[in-house]
Amino acid sequence: MTKQLEDRHGEKKKQPVKDAKPAGKPDAKSIGITVKKFDDMPEWYSQVCLKAELADHSPIKGCMVIRPYGYAIWQKIQEYFDGRLKKLGVQNAYFPLFIPESFFAREAQHAEGFKPEVAWVEQKNDQEEKYALRPTSETIIYDAYSRWIRSWRDLPLRLNQWCNIIRWEVKDVKMFLRTREFLWQEGHCVYESREQCDKETYMVLDEYEKLSHDILAVPIIKGKKTEKEKFAGAEFTTTIESLMPDGKALQMGTSHTLSQGFAKSFDINYLGQDEKYHHPWQNSWGFSTRLIGAIVLMHGDDKGLVLPPMIAPIHIVIVPIFFDKTKERVLEGAKKVYDQLSKNFSVKLDDRDEYSAGWKYNEWELKGVPLRLEIGPRDLDAHQVTIVRRDNGAKEAVSMHDMEAKISSTLASIQQNLLEKADRMVRERTVHAKNMKELIDEVASGNWAIAPFCGDDKCEASLKDETGGITSRCIPLHDKKVDGKCVRCGNVASVNVYFAKAY
Amino acid sequence: MTKQLEDRHGEKKKQPVKDAKPAGKPDAKSIGITVKKFDDMPEWYSQVCLKAELADHSPIKGCMVIRPYGYAIWQKIQEYFDGRLKKLGVQNAYFPLFIPESFFAREAQHAEGFKPEVAWVEQKNDQEEKYALRPTSETIIYDAYSRWIRSWRDLPLRLNQWCNIIRWEVKDVKMFLRTREFLWQEGHCVYESREQCDKETYMVLDEYEKLSHDILAVPIIKGKKTEKEKFAGAEFTTTIESLMPDGKALQMGTSHTLSQGFAKSFDINYLGQDEKYHHPWQNSWGFSTRLIGAIVLMHGDDKGLVLPPMIAPIHIVIVPIFFDKTKERVLEGAKKVYDQLSKNFSVKLDDRDEYSAGWKYNEWELKGVPLRLEIGPRDLDAHQVTIVRRDNGAKEAVSMHDMEAKISSTLASIQQNLLEKADRMVRERTVHAKNMKELIDEVASGNWAIAPFCGDDKCEASLKDETGGITSRCIPLHDKKVDGKCVRCGNVASVNVYFAKAY
Repeated sequence: MTKQLEDRHGEKKKQPVKDAKPAGKPDAKSIGITVKKFDDMPEWYSQVCLKAELADHSPIKGCMVIRPYGYAIWQKIQEYFDGRLKKLGVQNAYFPLFIPESFFAREAQHAEGFKPEVAWVEQKNDQEEKYALRPTSETIIYDAYSRWIRSWRDLPLRLNQWCNIIRWEVKDVKMFLRTREFLWQEGHCVYESREQCDKETYMVLDEYEKLSHDILAVPIIKGKKTEKEKFAGAEFTTTIESLMPDGKALQMGTSHTLSQGFAKSFDINYLGQDEKYHHPWQNSWGFSTRLIGAIVLMHGDDKGLVLPPMIAPIHIVIVPIFFDKTKERVLEGAKKVYDQLSKNFSVKLDDRDEYSAGWKYNEWELKGVPLRLEIGPRDLDAHQVTIVRRDNGAKEAVSMHDMEAKISSTLASIQQNLLEKADRMVRERTVHAKNMKELIDEVASGNWAIAPFCGDDKCEASLKDETGGITSRCIPLHDKKVDGKCVRCGNVASVNVYFAKAY
Repeated sequence: MTKQLEDRHGEKKKQPVKDAKPAGKPDAKSIGITVKKFDDMPEWYSQVCLKAELADHSPIKGCMVIRPYGYAIWQKIQEYFDGRLKKLGVQNAYFPLFIPESFFAREAQHAEGFKPEVAWVEQKNDQEEKYALRPTSETIIYDAYSRWIRSWRDLPLRLNQWCNIIRWEVKDVKMFLRTREFLWQEGHCVYESREQCDKETYMVLDEYEKLSHDILAVPIIKGKKTEKEKFAGAEFTTTIESLMPDGKALQMGTSHTLSQGFAKSFDINYLGQDEKYHHPWQNSWGFSTRLIGAIVLMHGDDKGLVLPPMIAPIHIVIVPIFFDKTKERVLEGAKKVYDQLSKNFSVKLDDRDEYSAGWKYNEWELKGVPLRLEIGPRDLDAHQVTIVRRDNGAKEAVSMHDMEAKISSTLASIQQNLLEKADRMVRERTVHAKNMKELIDEVASGNWAIAPFCGDDKCEASLKDETGGITSRCIPLHDKKVDGKCVRCGNVASVNVYFAKAY
């Protein structure tokens, strides 16, 4: 390899090193995660995000840069979900970044809930109202809806927007998981009846479940938020929640039935088929770039990122293995394989001279590419390639004849394996707590604790205070039987609740 | 038709009107443009944007809402151009909305140029720096580049972002053409050599030309901006400029060679193949949702929008024509045609009962759908459909057997016709001005005036002042011969310049 490097450099005119190295530049691309995932997960997580080049810090406190590799994952998620939206009859639109101050006052609960997180634009003069940067877009969108909706013929109205969101007060910044600015989709639908509205609130939750399970390979619990944890301004909030390997819960997406609250505040009404005016029923729902954080946490290992094939920007990296005298032949063979596979897969041919095969293995493992395909002189002789799975390291020689079918089935198997592994982890860590001691102990040991709960706001607030931050994650849907008294106050329990510390 | 309407309403349970009509609601969906395009183009333009439901006003001064129909056009443009970017090796990323105040100070010209338009975030405390909302992202992106770029192996670096942009000081707000917030793409590339950098600056300009010609059917002039009009911080700016039917020029996209200015200000350097450190060469380039305004202005007519098929969200609207006793049969036939055409085209079947065929014709003409397909009992008998072109109103009966091929060729013909028509208009209105009187007269009569020009900043500023706002649009590329003296000052002319009033 050194030889080749020199040869190659030899082609370029060499000049004596004159300039000093600018300060603050790292010596070389230092790759490799330096801590084990389960030794220090926050540090491990940060290193994976940075070193796999998903994201970078930025000079703005609490804001990150989404690098091309991270953004490509987001585009994969967008592409999938935008297709689903079209099938559901949801259209995209774009509303202003700015929310007039007076809009917040119209829906009191909503305003109260978002107040601490709102960033404002500096006023240039007093003639204009003060504007906030959208922490969510209910108010600015429903102002438009009040002009657009006139009759039952305009309903259902189903819109979505892909945009950036600003929530200023960020205490515990974590790339993708909690940043001042993030990207998301927000759906805002309007219906004639409560039944249709509620039905679609749950239908969207099912879509989110499908996205999480089938695409991200992240198992979730579908549930309702308690009164304390519901969206500010919602009648009820449904959620998909997952348990990350560090024992913290992550809210992956929420779908809210807003009922008629905003319709009343924003004067949205329609002439019904009964020729009378009515306030319509509304829901809103969203998920964000946070999902990328969930993928990192759930599937990553000590070597770095592990990407489910369904959202991997690169499915297969081809690493040709050669010495000087086999170089030409191997590269030619690798190129042929690349051309063949590129028709149906996203393939990267790593034909860089200046790095060793071993160095390349490490880099692409760090970046979580699902399959590595090695091809050397002996492979060519045997008309085969060697494929190595990122999820479990399994290595297999595959005849070039069967290559495509084998890769297809292996990618499907990786996708399934990641989901099953995650699912096992979550199931093993889901336990029932009969009293506060058990609840605290179980959460402390990284488990999700299901416990009967009275449903009272204040009881929940006290529970959080007394336990140093344990919160209710959700009331599982289709929960059949509530057994026992409230785990904290001992009053009658109305629901079962998943408790955990959360991101 | 009235009969059907009554019958249909008869099916619904009628109730006495009890509720009062809420104030501020329009009586009915009032469709139809009430002014002719060439009688009052600003009013016509505004009506088309609103009534074709491309956009709506918003409660925030200078900001608009992009409605689903307008956003679908933007997504078509994105889809096309994102595909081109991938072919050019450009990757997408996302950088923060916020720009630290100190960044503006680093590139003096850049800071000066954008200062009046910058909106700032209200500071919550003095510990943090003041942040601007991005009016463009050079500075925040190049700060990251200074960390990412280490050696020649990292070059070329080609990134793009699709995002929202804020430019606060807006005097003459016009939907799509000039708003405080708009959507755009901005490309930011870094190269080892000036040659490669300049080459790709022009290559992107060619891509913009292709987008404008082939997709939007808007003819443009490729040129360079004068020193006065170039991008703040650029060595030179290239541009595609079009002339709108009202005689105003519209800048459609720009591609800037930044040279090494930002690299020096932001301390971007790389270890070259010569083993010395160098500042790299950079370019940046962008186009925005303004392109949608160009489409409206260029192709629209007295009936409303006319969309080139390449960016039309709906290619064909099917309007079934029936009476009570033929309804079932006609709808069945229309549905069959719909199913068949949907495989290769974007088709809308307008089977609404409550509107007459004539009403539907008007609505879809207003919305600029390229082809209308009428189907009635007699069409079914003759195994044919009637197609009507939006661009010229031509009506033709087409055998169902040839339908798909005929539609394909007609759509292609519409696309071409729109470009040719626009091209004719622009060519007819491009004239040479030998002196200031001619220049002023020609621009006043809605023409683009080409005139020799000295190239001096101050002379150009004076020309603008003295003429009530005529500006240089561009110096055409590959301009062979400069003939005569500067149209204003009489000094030696160094270039030919396209002069016009501009959006």
